[in-house]
Amino acid sequence: MKLNPYYETLPENYLFAEIRRRVDAFRAAAPDKKIISLGIGDVTLPLAPAAVEAMTVAVAEMGNAATFRGYGPEDGYAFLREAVVRGEYLPYTDKISPDEIFISDGSKCDVGNFQELFSDDCKIAICDPVYPVYLDSNLMAGRGKNITLLKCREENNFMPELPEGKVDVIYLCSPNNPTGTAMDFETLAKFIDYARKNEAVILFDGAYSAYIRHPERTMHTIYQLPGADEVAVEFKSFSKTAGFTGVRCAFTTVPKKLSKLHRYWTRRPCTKFNGVSYIVQRGAEAIYTTEGSAQVKKSVDYYMDNANFIRRELAGHGFTVFGGEDAPYVWLKLPDGLSSWEFFDTLLNKCAVVGTPGVGFGQMGEGFFRLTGFGEKAATCEAV
Amino acid sequence: MKLNPYYETLPENYLFAEIRRRVDAFRAAAPDKKIISLGIGDVTLPLAPAAVEAMTVAVAEMGNAATFRGYGPEDGYAFLREAVVRGEYLPYTDKISPDEIFISDGSKCDVGNFQELFSDDCKIAICDPVYPVYLDSNLMAGRGKNITLLKCREENNFMPELPEGKVDVIYLCSPNNPTGTAMDFETLAKFIDYARKNEAVILFDGAYSAYIRHPERTMHTIYQLPGADEVAVEFKSFSKTAGFTGVRCAFTTVPKKLSKLHRYWTRRPCTKFNGVSYIVQRGAEAIYTTEGSAQVKKSVDYYMDNANFIRRELAGHGFTVFGGEDAPYVWLKLPDGLSSWEFFDTLLNKCAVVGTPGVGFGQMGEGFFRLTGFGEKAATCEAV
Repeated sequence: MKLNPYYETLPENYLFAEIRRRVDAFRAAAPDKKIISLGIGDVTLPLAPAAVEAMTVAVAEMGNAATFRGYGPEDGYAFLREAVVRGEYLPYTDKISPDEIFISDGSKCDVGNFQELFSDDCKIAICDPVYPVYLDSNLMAGRGKNITLLKCREENNFMPELPEGKVDVIYLCSPNNPTGTAMDFETLAKFIDYARKNEAVILFDGAYSAYIRHPERTMHTIYQLPGADEVAVEFKSFSKTAGFTGVRCAFTTVPKKLSKLHRYWTRRPCTKFNGVSYIVQRGAEAIYTTEGSAQVKKSVDYYMDNANFIRRELAGHGFTVFGGEDAPYVWLKLPDGLSSWEFFDTLLNKCAVVGTPGVGFGQMGEGFFRLTGFGEKAATCEAV
Repeated sequence: MKLNPYYETLPENYLFAEIRRRVDAFRAAAPDKKIISLGIGDVTLPLAPAAVEAMTVAVAEMGNAATFRGYGPEDGYAFLREAVVRGEYLPYTDKISPDEIFISDGSKCDVGNFQELFSDDCKIAICDPVYPVYLDSNLMAGRGKNITLLKCREENNFMPELPEGKVDVIYLCSPNNPTGTAMDFETLAKFIDYARKNEAVILFDGAYSAYIRHPERTMHTIYQLPGADEVAVEFKSFSKTAGFTGVRCAFTTVPKKLSKLHRYWTRRPCTKFNGVSYIVQRGAEAIYTTEGSAQVKKSVDYYMDNANFIRRELAGHGFTVFGGEDAPYVWLKLPDGLSSWEFFDTLLNKCAVVGTPGVGFGQMGEGFFRLTGFGEKAATCEAV
């Protein structure tokens, strides 16, 4: 059978599957222990009432002949694309219009699929440490030899280094998963400048922008920076903003100035996608209403309180910590040269607390550990 | 910019986008004319009450802290995978188990994405005429030179010919879109035999199996045939069965006997997908309840009555027609050597009726025209 040979170049276990395996083994051995997870970045609060209400109405519409809807536009209903521009862009920039917004069922899908638009031999720059999807989706496509890692170091607050030499595509994520740090305007401006000079494209993952608390030092959207709309594609999600991890909705912004990419990303869903559930799109639209946005803000504040608490308490006990100020993630430096999987196992077996080993995000993550603010408040305090 | 060069090998306009363009132009020129569409294969009846009820409950669960769900399993909740096996497979075969079912947001996505699991140089066989996604997704992947077309001819009731020589992957669709014809057991057995002898994989699209009325001559699932579970992957959808075109749910069955494909298709969603909306999965589960399946059957019967009517009336007026017996599509042979786009334009401009030109499905579709039974009954009668 002539299979894709590059699937065999992937790490054997997807990071979170491996964590699940170890937690399951612990649970089997100690079924009475209560496990607290500060591991996978999954939300825990219920959906905003505005989204629940809107989806309840939409479900009823689908059961009524007069209001039933079949196939929707592959790239999303105009009502949601317009709401996104009003809610996500107009407060920061007037550069983005609704026909540059593509609604999808998740940023993981979009980030994973976007690489298809580039040639097999293009050169890719990816930060280290980083969310594994950028790397894995390019490995699957056979670009293992074309990947440059941009090292992110503690001494530089985990800001990525510029690529040495010419690359074609650069993945950036800010506020960052896993380090919880946010790019400052100056660093990002350097990348935009690099991209313009090198005809490179920046794929900017902004899934955590709702967690920004210091807008004076970091950007809600990359399009706040001059020239970004000529070189950057932006990925955003309702998962962490509105608790949609189990509901599934996101969007990707491809400016028309990136003309071929805009045309190709318009074409791809025509062939390989059939749009997001109408019900879900109505739920997403509702978070941009006055009530919806207030409700969503409350949940984000709750998670940020957790992240701040983790950061403050660990720092107060002498640990070195990063993140947790503009992101729901705290990046803990491990003491005593412990490896991150050793620490994972110790923390699980001694304290029944789950986190994410830094090395799971790349070699530069070794010696670090990711904790999330997405847990329930009392459990988070107990774990800390 | 180093872009995927194969996007430029795609036909300029996706078939249904081109149809929409011409219909929009007609509407602009004659805004008062009522247009009847027997064109795109989209359902028109509202969702089954059982699905509406289940999704209403699921939406409420998501708004409640005690029942809220975040990320689900990438390949679907066990409750739906088990319901699928009970509802779709056990009545016909005991060969398929829940861990061979992968829940997705649409067959178009699955059919479009599955080719990624094969090598770039594998040889692909695709029927002509055919649903455009099989061809276009392989063109995008750069396999334009590796494609063999399996001609489907009128004199053979549009059954595909076996490939000459060795191919690695064969796409089949039965009941067929666009011809509306269904494969008989003997023809399909020959393909399974070919696949076993040539180490080929059959990608079997069974999106329309709910429309089968002659189970004695055609299969509900390919796994009714001996040996199919060693060579075949099956795609099925809730779109046409339960009217989920705007709700989005489908599944792909990859038997464990196809061990590497099973492993790769397990791995792909871990990297590039995050599961189907919980709300939608509850809706899909509900169509397998006693009430749900009766309600869904009623809608399918309604569409089949339309298809039968189209077939019967056109045949009665001396036209040569295919399909419409085990599928919602009727495949009309055009008289007088008319091209299928000429007929499209004539039908639109003279009668304000929309269908789909056969040539849009491949060169062998020239001289034919697809009509669907998915319309409203009175409008369908008027159009005929």
